[in-house]
Amino acid sequence: MPTFPTQFPVEPRIGRIKGFKAAGIHAGYKKDGALDFALIYSETPCVTAGVFTTNLVKAAPVLVDMERLRANSTGIRAVVVNTRCANACTGQQGIDNALMMARWTAERLGIREDEVLVMSTGVIGTQLNMDIIRRGIDLAADALADDETAWANAAAAIMTTDTRPKAASVKPDNAAYAIGGIAKGAGMIAPNMATMLGLVVTDAQIDDPHAAHALLTKAAAVSFNCISVDGDTSTNDTLLLLANGASGEAPQYNPFSEMLRDVCLRLAVEIVRDGEGATKFIELVVMGAGGGERAIANTIATSPLVKTAFYGSDPNWGRIVAAAGRAGVEVDPMQMRLWIAPWDEAEGELLLFENGAPTAYDEARAVGIMAGANIRVRLECGRGTGSATVYTCDLSHDYVSINGHYRT
Amino acid sequence: MPTFPTQFPVEPRIGRIKGFKAAGIHAGYKKDGALDFALIYSETPCVTAGVFTTNLVKAAPVLVDMERLRANSTGIRAVVVNTRCANACTGQQGIDNALMMARWTAERLGIREDEVLVMSTGVIGTQLNMDIIRRGIDLAADALADDETAWANAAAAIMTTDTRPKAASVKPDNAAYAIGGIAKGAGMIAPNMATMLGLVVTDAQIDDPHAAHALLTKAAAVSFNCISVDGDTSTNDTLLLLANGASGEAPQYNPFSEMLRDVCLRLAVEIVRDGEGATKFIELVVMGAGGGERAIANTIATSPLVKTAFYGSDPNWGRIVAAAGRAGVEVDPMQMRLWIAPWDEAEGELLLFENGAPTAYDEARAVGIMAGANIRVRLECGRGTGSATVYTCDLSHDYVSINGHYRT
Repeated sequence: MPTFPTQFPVEPRIGRIKGFKAAGIHAGYKKDGALDFALIYSETPCVTAGVFTTNLVKAAPVLVDMERLRANSTGIRAVVVNTRCANACTGQQGIDNALMMARWTAERLGIREDEVLVMSTGVIGTQLNMDIIRRGIDLAADALADDETAWANAAAAIMTTDTRPKAASVKPDNAAYAIGGIAKGAGMIAPNMATMLGLVVTDAQIDDPHAAHALLTKAAAVSFNCISVDGDTSTNDTLLLLANGASGEAPQYNPFSEMLRDVCLRLAVEIVRDGEGATKFIELVVMGAGGGERAIANTIATSPLVKTAFYGSDPNWGRIVAAAGRAGVEVDPMQMRLWIAPWDEAEGELLLFENGAPTAYDEARAVGIMAGANIRVRLECGRGTGSATVYTCDLSHDYVSINGHYRT
Repeated sequence: MPTFPTQFPVEPRIGRIKGFKAAGIHAGYKKDGALDFALIYSETPCVTAGVFTTNLVKAAPVLVDMERLRANSTGIRAVVVNTRCANACTGQQGIDNALMMARWTAERLGIREDEVLVMSTGVIGTQLNMDIIRRGIDLAADALADDETAWANAAAAIMTTDTRPKAASVKPDNAAYAIGGIAKGAGMIAPNMATMLGLVVTDAQIDDPHAAHALLTKAAAVSFNCISVDGDTSTNDTLLLLANGASGEAPQYNPFSEMLRDVCLRLAVEIVRDGEGATKFIELVVMGAGGGERAIANTIATSPLVKTAFYGSDPNWGRIVAAAGRAGVEVDPMQMRLWIAPWDEAEGELLLFENGAPTAYDEARAVGIMAGANIRVRLECGRGTGSATVYTCDLSHDYVSINGHYRT
C-alpha cells in the first residue's frame, strides 16, 4: 500500500516525546484479553485544545471535556480512555461516571481532578462498568512509560472495530520538539463501536490556549473534517491537542502548523483506509464550484451508489456527476469535467466526462484504475478557483455485515 | 404482506379509463424478450402537469418535457417510454434523439409533435438506439388497448431493476371518473437502471393546467417526495398527470386531491417495498422538531448505520437518535422519545428511549418488532406539533451486490 504523501516525514509510530508517558492495558472490557484501556500523562501541565463532535447528541465524556476545557485550557495533565462503552445516552449517571473516572485517575496520579480529560468509545446507551474503569486506571497508571512500546499499546488500546492501531509522529531535524498522535475510527459513529477519537501531544511550548485551538482547528479542517466512511457523525468524536512545553522550544507558527496538519492528515487517512469493510481508498478533489466545492465533495463521498460502484471497480462516472448535481450547489453539467487516476501520479489522469457527455475514454484503462486499491478522482465544475478534498472509502458487503449484525 | 392503508379503496391494477389506451411491448432493449417499451395515448388532448427531478444534471427527456409543458400544458396526447437507456449525459445528440422519439410517435399516431412527451430510464451516458426506438413506437402503437392487460403490460414495460410492476387506481362509487397510475423505481437514481418514473392518468375534467399542477405537486409532496431508498436523486425522475376529461365530470377539488394522493402514495410505497435489495419496509414519523421534522426524517432514512441496523433486525435506537442529532436541526436529546411498533397497530408501540437514556424495554419484544418485514418508527422531539413521514427500506447485502457489480 502506498504511503500518503505529506510535506514532512511522518513516522507511523511515536518515539519519546519529552515529559509525556503513555499506557495501553487490558482492563476487562474486551473478552479476549486484548488492550482496551489507555492513559496519557504529562509530567507538567499542558496547554490543551479540543475539537468535538457537532452532533447535538453528545456523549457524557464530550460534555465533561468541553466544560473542563472552558475552565482550564492551560493545565491538563492526563487523558484517560476506555473502549467498548461510549457512555453516550446515559443521562445524569453517565455524567457522574465520567466525572468519577476523571477523579479516580487524578487521585491515582496525584494530580488535580480538573487536570484530567476523559474519552469513551463503544456501545451507546449502556453505563460504564466502574469496576473495570477502576481496574483500568490502576493498571494503566502502573504501566505508564515514555517509550515507543507504551505509545503503541495506547494506540492499540483505543481500537474498537479498527483492524489496526493508528499512530503518527513528526520530529523535525532542526527543532527540539516533536509531535505525536494516536487515533481510532473505523465507522464515523458511536452507537456501535465506532467513533473517531484523536489525541495529539507535543513537547513544543505553546503558551496561548487560543493559539493551540486555532492550530488544532486549522489542522482538523483539512484532515479529520475531510474524511468520510459512511457520513454519520458520532456522539463521541473528539480530537485533543496537549502541549506541555517540555522541549523548551516555542515553535514558529507556520512550520508547526504544517507539521500538526501532516500528523492529523496521516491519522485521518489511516482511519479511512481502515474504514469498516473498506477495500479501497479514494481521494476526491472538487474544484471550481463557486464556493460549494466541499458540499459537492461530501455529497459524492456519502452517496451509496458512488461508494458501491467503487467497491465493484465500476468506472461509473454517471453516479459521480449525478451526485454533484443534487448537492444543492449551482453547477452546470456542461461545464463539468471528471478525471480518475491511479495512485501513481506518473500514469496521469483519465478524462471520463466533459461537455455534458462521456469522452471516448479507454474502458479497459478506466476499469484498471478503478480496480486499484487507491484511486484519485477529480471533478472540475468550471466556476472559480475553489478546491476541496475529501478522503473516503468504498461501501462493501463487509460494511453491511459489520453494521447489520453487530449486536445480534 | 399487509397493504398500506389509504383513505380510498386503491386497486393494484388499472381498468378502463375513458379515452386512454396503453401498451407495453418488447422493442429490443431487454435481451430476454421482456417488455421494455411503453406508450400511453389519449383520444383527446389532456391538461397535463409534471414534476421533475431537482437534480441539476437533468436527462434529455426531462429537459424536453419541461420545455414542452411550458408551451403546451393543455394539449398532451401521448407519452412514450423506453427502458435500458436513460438518455442522460448525452449532450445535444441526446436532446435531438428525444425530440426524434417524440416526432416519430406523433407521426405514427397521427397527432402533433408537441402533443407527445418522452420518458427514458436506464444506463446513463449512452445514446438511444434509434432503431430500437423506431421499432418500439411501431409495435406499441399497434398494441394500444384500453383494457387492464394493456395497462399491466405498460407497467411491466417500464421496469428496470424493479422486481415487479407497480400500478394503482381508484374508481369512486359516486363519480364518473377514475384515476390510474403506473410507476417504476427500485433505486432512486438513474446512472444505472434505477429512476423513479410515475405516470398518472384520469378521465376527470380538469380545465386549468395550474390546478392540475397544484394537485400533482400536493400529491407528490406526501408520496413520491417522502420515499427514500438510498438518498440519491435521479437525473430522470419524472411524474406526470394527464387529464383528458373524457368522463365529462369535473371533480370536486378535495376528494379528487385525496384520491390522487392515495394513488400516488400506493405507487410510492410500492417503489420502496421493491427497493433495491430491500428486505424491510419502514414508516418513519418525526414529530415536534420545530419545523425541522422532514430534515430529521430524511437524515435518519438515509443513514447507512440506521439502514444496516434494520437489515440486521437490530433495535439500535442509538443510531436513530444519533442521526437525529446530526440533522442540522436544533433538538435536545433529553426531550426526545423514540418508539418502534409492528405493522399491526393493535400490538401497540414500544418506547425505547426517553430522558436522554434508554428505557427498561423488553429486548426480546424489540427484536421481535425489528424482525418483522414492516416496521413503524416514531420519534417525538418535544418542540411543537409539526410532523413528517418518510417511507424507506433497509440497506442489505443485495443492495451492495446490485449496485456494486451492475456494469461489470
